[in-house]
Amino acid sequence: MMPRSERLTSIGHDDIDDIARGAAVLGAGGGGDPYLGSLIAKHAIDVHGPVQLVAPEDVPDDALVLPVAIMGAPTVIVERPPAGDELARAVEALSGHLGRPVTHIAFFEAGGLNSMTPIQTAAETGLPLIDADGMGRAFPELQMVTFSLEGISASPMVLADDKGNVVLLQAKDNVWAERLARVATVEMGCSAPIALYPHSGAQTKAAQVPHTLSLTRDIGRLLRGARAEHRDPAAVLADAFDGRVLLRGKVVDVSRRTSGGFVRGSARIEGHESHSGSALELDFQNENLVARLDGELVATVPDLICVLDADTGEPITTEALRYGFRVSVIGLPCDARWRTDEGLALVGPRYFGYDVDYSPLERGQDDASG
Amino acid sequence: MMPRSERLTSIGHDDIDDIARGAAVLGAGGGGDPYLGSLIAKHAIDVHGPVQLVAPEDVPDDALVLPVAIMGAPTVIVERPPAGDELARAVEALSGHLGRPVTHIAFFEAGGLNSMTPIQTAAETGLPLIDADGMGRAFPELQMVTFSLEGISASPMVLADDKGNVVLLQAKDNVWAERLARVATVEMGCSAPIALYPHSGAQTKAAQVPHTLSLTRDIGRLLRGARAEHRDPAAVLADAFDGRVLLRGKVVDVSRRTSGGFVRGSARIEGHESHSGSALELDFQNENLVARLDGELVATVPDLICVLDADTGEPITTEALRYGFRVSVIGLPCDARWRTDEGLALVGPRYFGYDVDYSPLERGQDDASG
Repeated sequence: MMPRSERLTSIGHDDIDDIARGAAVLGAGGGGDPYLGSLIAKHAIDVHGPVQLVAPEDVPDDALVLPVAIMGAPTVIVERPPAGDELARAVEALSGHLGRPVTHIAFFEAGGLNSMTPIQTAAETGLPLIDADGMGRAFPELQMVTFSLEGISASPMVLADDKGNVVLLQAKDNVWAERLARVATVEMGCSAPIALYPHSGAQTKAAQVPHTLSLTRDIGRLLRGARAEHRDPAAVLADAFDGRVLLRGKVVDVSRRTSGGFVRGSARIEGHESHSGSALELDFQNENLVARLDGELVATVPDLICVLDADTGEPITTEALRYGFRVSVIGLPCDARWRTDEGLALVGPRYFGYDVDYSPLERGQDDASG
Repeated sequence: MMPRSERLTSIGHDDIDDIARGAAVLGAGGGGDPYLGSLIAKHAIDVHGPVQLVAPEDVPDDALVLPVAIMGAPTVIVERPPAGDELARAVEALSGHLGRPVTHIAFFEAGGLNSMTPIQTAAETGLPLIDADGMGRAFPELQMVTFSLEGISASPMVLADDKGNVVLLQAKDNVWAERLARVATVEMGCSAPIALYPHSGAQTKAAQVPHTLSLTRDIGRLLRGARAEHRDPAAVLADAFDGRVLLRGKVVDVSRRTSGGFVRGSARIEGHESHSGSALELDFQNENLVARLDGELVATVPDLICVLDADTGEPITTEALRYGFRVSVIGLPCDARWRTDEGLALVGPRYFGYDVDYSPLERGQDDASG
């Protein structure tokens, strides 16, 4: 997916709501609802002024780029966004370790709450922010970034919590970075600000999914427009970004538990109107992973499976999903990099324990939207 | 307890067995059996030459002193002593972080396997070693050192495992250092080489328990001598170091489990000979913590409670204790610092969950040795 209109060059207070709504869509159910984070980002902009947004192609090759995020279970991180100086401390700790100043803040994950974290960090540190991220969506584990595909190490990586603890990891590989950061995050209270995958401007151009912040703004705008014009938000979104409406219906069952820093569970949605008689089973681990319509696989990770409120188009995260919600489930295509063999090894359905091959959304059955 | 003879000035291959045996006594049942570690220390000395041992009073005030150890459950660390370059990597990582070279290696814990870890590290790095430690025995948690009493921070602290992972902690306080290091250790496989509490030579003089390596050598020699002369090793040891024989008898019950990086459990020892009709209950968490004789408290942490093979005087660790062993249980006085209010807050019986006040070993009932 690419932005549809002119790109953002700065982020002001009034851009935040559209970005947050678009980021919630890219969250594919995960990444945490950006709402509280959006309040903090607005406050940071109010205090420090608008954030300068730089296109990845305009970043100097010798820049020192640092993606930042919050790690943890969405059920927890949405209630504990970083309210102190922990993000700035994480950036400072990594600058100190590397022995040179970070020049640009980047998005680790454009989907969910972590769309807001780098905006807040850029505002607080006064550093420019890059309009790009490492996922083009949200994923539950920290090795699941395009940076990994380009051979960039997650390490040195910093976790900095609100109590004043700083953990610096130099992990053997990105999977070990995930393991060690996860246990530290759980001990810190199931959420922790992180700064990781430090890399050069040259690597930004090769490794990042470009212009995803502009994309979130466009998605947010579209949903806002659809609502104002009383158009079907799910159809508008699917049309605009080569996606498909998978089912419209009512949530009839949700099971969910939080363990080891993850939210895992499943939901059942029974179709209504033109989808009467059909049912969609949705599995998630922080993010929506696999959708089966009447037992047939219709969408799998890494494509985006998003649940929207049927009327307002508001994205619904996996931790907010409730019995009785009337929803539209849509599929949106992921970044092309995730569809390569290397990409699928990192984030395909088999990694998550499903004994199915990935099949691109577009090759599924005909659009079920009616 | 203080050494009884001239102090060591270097550690050669032939010193290791006495030191290891003495360190097992100071381990008070914990700290892990030094046997495998002693083989590695001997090998390091064979390859790199004897280790220079410096008395704490002779360390220059501006020295950068770094204690090293292995963290983890004794049941695991005795099977996984550091066989690669992980200790040297930990020292190097901390030097790099501090921006200046470590000048002296120190003992974190003279009791148990961690008597061997710094010898190996000093041999491998070529750095001098200080004849002192932070406990004068072994304790299960990393804030339980005299360094804490002097306000020295455990941070910056490094964990370096055999897989190539390095974790650098800048914890808010020493209890947080323990919490974060513990979860990282468990994730690394329940054992991890650590380097922590970096401090100056001036601080070494104020904070360390002096001459404990010479003490371990003396204890080891005494036990070896007692065996050669067919004297009772428990009585020899108690006499030499103001301790008491608490019971001679047979182990009739042991329960033990390993969880969260600790070995916890209890043992029952029924008296024989002059102690016939008495029974001693022993509780441990890595180390022996509390001894009750016929229901009466006779010794508690921080004093040392040591279980020795009745005939050979070989110290028996909590993970090696078995039904049927004939043993002598002795109490030895801890360093005076542990008997202050600050010391007891850190390592007294109440910290370990026992609703009893500490009573110095010497104030207990009359010596039960007969």
